[in-house]
Amino acid sequence: MVLPNQMVKSMVGKIIRVEMKGEENQLVGKLEGVDDYMNLYLTNAMECKGEEKVRSLGEIVLRGNNVVLIQPQEE
Amino acid sequence: MVLPNQMVKSMVGKIIRVEMKGEENQLVGKLEGVDDYMNLYLTNAMECKGEEKVRSLGEIVLRGNNVVLIQPQEE
Amino acid sequence: MVLPNQMVKSMVGKIIRVEMKGEENQLVGKLEGVDDYMNLYLTNAMECKGEEKVRSLGEIVLRGNNVVLIQPQEE
Amino acid sequence: MVLPNQMVKSMVGKIIRVEMKGEENQLVGKLEGVDDYMNLYLTNAMECKGEEKVRSLGEIVLRGNNVVLIQPQEE
Amino acid sequence: MVLPNQMVKSMVGKIIRVEMKGEENQLVGKLEGVDDYMNLYLTNAMECKGEEKVRSLGEIVLRGNNVVLIQPQEE
Amino acid sequence: MVLPNQMVKSMVGKIIRVEMKGEENQLVGKLEGVDDYMNLYLTNAMECKGEEKVRSLGEIVLRGNNVVLIQPQEE
Repeated sequence: MVLPNQMVKSMVGKIIRVEMKGEENQLVGKLEGVDDYMNLYLTNAMECKGEEKVRSLGEIVLRGNNVVLIQPQEE
Repeated sequence: MVLPNQMVKSMVGKIIRVEMKGEENQLVGKLEGVDDYMNLYLTNAMECKGEEKVRSLGEIVLRGNNVVLIQPQEE
Repeated sequence: MVLPNQMVKSMVGKIIRVEMKGEENQLVGKLEGVDDYMNLYLTNAMECKGEEKVRSLGEIVLRGNNVVLIQPQEE
Repeated sequence: MVLPNQMVKSMVGKIIRVEMKGEENQLVGKLEGVDDYMNLYLTNAMECKGEEKVRSLGEIVLRGNNVVLIQPQEE
Repeated sequence: MVLPNQMVKSMVGKIIRVEMKGEENQLVGKLEGVDDYMNLYLTNAMECKGEEKVRSLGEIVLRGNNVVLIQPQEE
Repeated sequence: MVLPNQMVKSMVGKIIRVEMKGEENQLVGKLEGVDDYMNLYLTNAMECKGEEKVRSLGEIVLRGNNVVLIQPQEE
């Protein structure tokens, strides 16, 4: 069995797509850091509506309990 | 008494349907991993509106506190 | 004083009605298991709109933090 | 300083009014039990829209994290 | 660095304004008690829409996880 | 790997932009304090709709679990 947190930690250094509670669009960026609460630190982050880029966000920290879904994102 | 987490762990390796807070549709996929917070790691995941497939999602991690309902799904 | 979790544990084996955050309708089913986080495992579950049955759900696990209200349900 | 949980425990045996996340109306009933998570066990509970009674609920358990506001209710 | 909980504890005995998840308006009252979960016990509480008083609430307990924002309120 | 909380602590003393669950607009202010739950204490805080200032808020404490996104803000 692969634990969910192990899976997320394996994405560090890669581009991921995150759906958040309280955010209409998704957030795509390079995963720089994650902790046991699934708090996430992304760089070069963008707000995306599907494949369409809405705006650049740069460095962002996302609060774990408001993360809904995390997905590896093809570069 | 069967504990809820035992029940979910018994679904590892099987197809499950998950309803999430913050997601209009359901998520169906193979349960690869679950932890004590009910964080879930699914593969071959799809977003479904009832029985209708909306889109493929591939590998996804779902944050436990935003899980509302988990159901075994007939293959 | 009767502790809330004691009260829920006393409902194991009986039919209960549950209101969930993120679910428009209520869930009615036999309570098979509950833990200290009020995660719930129900069998023969149905989705109900008041007294009207909307659909059968079979075996379901409900995440405790999204439980709003639990009520014993007359059989 | 009076700690919030002390205050709630002092309401055991009395009628209280509770506002819940995920519930449009308020819940009024006799507080039979409360724990450190502010999970609540009420008896003779009613669903109320202001002072107007909507329906009887009997015995109910309310999940603490979805409690928004607790108020002593004049009998 | 001033820790957030220290800041809130320094407001005990003073009037504060609180924004809650699940509450359209704000809550203004005298902070009588707070704990490490930011559960709050207020007296002489009022529901306010900006500066306009909507209704008196008297003694209230607010559940910490549904607190969004706390602000000292000029008397 | 840079842990998310380390990243937020590195922003103490600087201006940040915060998106909160339950708040339509964003909150911009000087980060004075943060704890392990990502509770935040800001001074000279403003409510902003994008780059447009909506109102001044002065000193505010924000509850960690309702934080969605934290971003350093160019001065």
